[in-house]
Amino acid sequence: MKKLITVSVKTILLLALSSTALAQDSELGLSDGSVEHAKALRDTAMQGSMAYSIVESLTTEVGPRLAGTEAEARARDWAVAKLDELGFENVRIEPFTIQGWERGSESAELLAPYPQPLSFTTLGGSVATPEAGIEADIVLFPSLADLEAAAPGSLTGKIAFVSHAMQKTQDGSSYGFHGRLRRSGASIAASKGAVAILIRSIGTDSHRMPHTGSMRYDPEIEKIPAAALSNPDADQLERIHARGETMRVRFNVQPTFTGESETGNVIVDIRGTESPDEVVIIGGHLDSWDLGTGAIDDGAGIGIATAAAKLILDSGKRPKRSIRLILWGAEEVGLLGGFAYLERHKKDLEKQIIGTESDFGAGKVWQLNSQVSEEAQPLVDKMAELLAPIGVAPGSSNSPGAGPDLTPLVRAGMPSLRLNQDGNDYFDLHHTADDTLDKINPHDLDQNVAAFAVFAWLAADTDLRFKAP
Amino acid sequence: MKKLITVSVKTILLLALSSTALAQDSELGLSDGSVEHAKALRDTAMQGSMAYSIVESLTTEVGPRLAGTEAEARARDWAVAKLDELGFENVRIEPFTIQGWERGSESAELLAPYPQPLSFTTLGGSVATPEAGIEADIVLFPSLADLEAAAPGSLTGKIAFVSHAMQKTQDGSSYGFHGRLRRSGASIAASKGAVAILIRSIGTDSHRMPHTGSMRYDPEIEKIPAAALSNPDADQLERIHARGETMRVRFNVQPTFTGESETGNVIVDIRGTESPDEVVIIGGHLDSWDLGTGAIDDGAGIGIATAAAKLILDSGKRPKRSIRLILWGAEEVGLLGGFAYLERHKKDLEKQIIGTESDFGAGKVWQLNSQVSEEAQPLVDKMAELLAPIGVAPGSSNSPGAGPDLTPLVRAGMPSLRLNQDGNDYFDLHHTADDTLDKINPHDLDQNVAAFAVFAWLAADTDLRFKAP
Repeated sequence: MKKLITVSVKTILLLALSSTALAQDSELGLSDGSVEHAKALRDTAMQGSMAYSIVESLTTEVGPRLAGTEAEARARDWAVAKLDELGFENVRIEPFTIQGWERGSESAELLAPYPQPLSFTTLGGSVATPEAGIEADIVLFPSLADLEAAAPGSLTGKIAFVSHAMQKTQDGSSYGFHGRLRRSGASIAASKGAVAILIRSIGTDSHRMPHTGSMRYDPEIEKIPAAALSNPDADQLERIHARGETMRVRFNVQPTFTGESETGNVIVDIRGTESPDEVVIIGGHLDSWDLGTGAIDDGAGIGIATAAAKLILDSGKRPKRSIRLILWGAEEVGLLGGFAYLERHKKDLEKQIIGTESDFGAGKVWQLNSQVSEEAQPLVDKMAELLAPIGVAPGSSNSPGAGPDLTPLVRAGMPSLRLNQDGNDYFDLHHTADDTLDKINPHDLDQNVAAFAVFAWLAADTDLRFKAP
Repeated sequence: MKKLITVSVKTILLLALSSTALAQDSELGLSDGSVEHAKALRDTAMQGSMAYSIVESLTTEVGPRLAGTEAEARARDWAVAKLDELGFENVRIEPFTIQGWERGSESAELLAPYPQPLSFTTLGGSVATPEAGIEADIVLFPSLADLEAAAPGSLTGKIAFVSHAMQKTQDGSSYGFHGRLRRSGASIAASKGAVAILIRSIGTDSHRMPHTGSMRYDPEIEKIPAAALSNPDADQLERIHARGETMRVRFNVQPTFTGESETGNVIVDIRGTESPDEVVIIGGHLDSWDLGTGAIDDGAGIGIATAAAKLILDSGKRPKRSIRLILWGAEEVGLLGGFAYLERHKKDLEKQIIGTESDFGAGKVWQLNSQVSEEAQPLVDKMAELLAPIGVAPGSSNSPGAGPDLTPLVRAGMPSLRLNQDGNDYFDLHHTADDTLDKINPHDLDQNVAAFAVFAWLAADTDLRFKAP
């Protein structure tokens, strides 16, 4: 008797839950059982996904893969083969070209007052020094604002050194402020007469690991070489400066501009059942900087997005809209994959329903931000509800942004959602030689896969419009 | 009234303590008030010592200081000036010569199956490759024992790669076992026909920071180049090996042997009042590897020992025996400062009463080990009692060893004491470019200074003989 009663209660509960669930589904424009399916995807991912094995494969079998190089081409070949092997159909490359740049030899040493070598690296896009290098005194600026305040001509014949130190933040928001030094510092220093600029790495570690990253020149101003010292080396120069000593440096970098170079986005769709032309985009970027093997930037994103797509592919259900997995090319050198995609698909802009990219390392997702229509907000709230048990808190519902490569689409009006990862440690490794597989915790990747699968499934399986009318 | 009573009680307590203390002092062969003086030294050090400022000065104003180079000579000049400035008298250098070696250019890349650069460094004392480098297939051995088991001739034309991974231990004891690969691996590999050897770094971190360190050749066996990969690079080769792939490497190192080179020990005494010829030795080593600025290896030891001596110098009391501070030269290349000192002072061997060296990083002291006469054991027990409140536990009383540079003296019969530092993290940084000042916690140095001051004071202020009859 006891057993029979138990079963009956269970049955009643299941029926009750089930009818609630169905009501939920239809109110959110979803097919029947869609929310339960999203939960199942989440729980399956949390029990272990293939994200880590994908990152392992990419970082081992390709390694560093700078945009526009033969190594990035091998990464595209790897991606096509991997997606084929995983059972995706119609994997394709959308090629485009970029102006290539490659790091060359690099050496720098303090000549006076205390001779010693310096650990540093050339910034991406920097011009070379003369072949014999540059030998000059350093003028130290505590911040970019101090450099900007220097009088024109005051740095003639000098090397500017800007030492402002980036702080850790969970959301990585200090990168914007501090990163401006890397992106724009060279032309600002050149406008004051400097012959080169050295910056403290845009990074939060304390290792002899200089951080590279892209920079640009103001076309109106003379181009001077630009490089980043590791944080301990920047500390060292600050200590010497504090002694009132003039520092003299010998500095030689020989990067080359390699001209028009092939790159591309690797794309595959899980075809929708009702509106296959409408696509929900997930992805990560395939290129990396040349110093490390691009594990956290962005092998992790490739692994997370691919594993989420694979989970849905294998789930036996297809959503109404298509889910598009994009493994972006040439992100590091100016989001060029994102711009190329927009250019190619701008006639279908309205079909790019919503998207998100994983490109902030391998830490857990802690926050969901979005910017969607009022109509679709309840569905985003439902996503947040499903993700709360795995540690994701609802964030802003007025936050455009879906990851770097989707910036061009978002600026063009595409609704967006972002699964923010914990970035406290991200800038310890970002753009350094130390960005390698050993830094990734597979279980943290699984949590990301769960979040991506929930987002991609629900966004693709609804009839709701994410775009405000 | 109340106040008067309080004072009386205090006075009685002080008198009682004082008479106990005096009894203690005389039983231990110490001058009156000696134990209290040791406590005061300890407590003063714990409130802040100058150890950190000394390391800061050495690592900033000299930086890397490889034995036998002009940089090590600058370190000796720095040391003499610093000790003069601190008020020590009769600072002197005992010079000697060594066979110099300097690192040259280094490059290595995996050519197949997955082309990528490797992060590695030449081992100290290695011969160069031919100018054009070496290109060869790798044979991977999980351990040195596996390499030793390989058949003669089985590695002809190959590069041996030995991947055994060092584990962290508090006492650093795994260095002996794992370090043998670095010290002796080249000749073992050469005896099997290998053209070069690559090893996994003897280090416990997971950064792209290869660990250098000294190696030696068996004079009977052909000399082949030897280098260490960073741990993440070694992991990478293991992953590729696990795929069953043959790895081909291009490898080029150009170190040079610089012939007879000057080095030396910097020495100063705090002269004893009763037996000034008898010396208690404390110190650290002045040379460092060339990659980092030698903060933990061994700027920390220089700072700790010098600050302890300075504390005693400024304490207004002089011990019976002399305290000798030795800033050793050429430790990294074979304890050559220690051997030179023994050679020079072997006629005074009986006057070298006891000694200890700080050369295990900047972590706190956690254990006191010693090997002294039965007569002196109660004094060592007293040292342990005084150090217990600052976190030092008594260890073995049958443990010869006083630090690397005192090994020759200890082997020749000098009693020894060792203040073991926590070494769990030491081999994360040891012999890498990452051995820089930012890794040091000043308060941990102060605790070391306290321990060194207690040891040096009590050992020098006693009449007890440390050497067993």
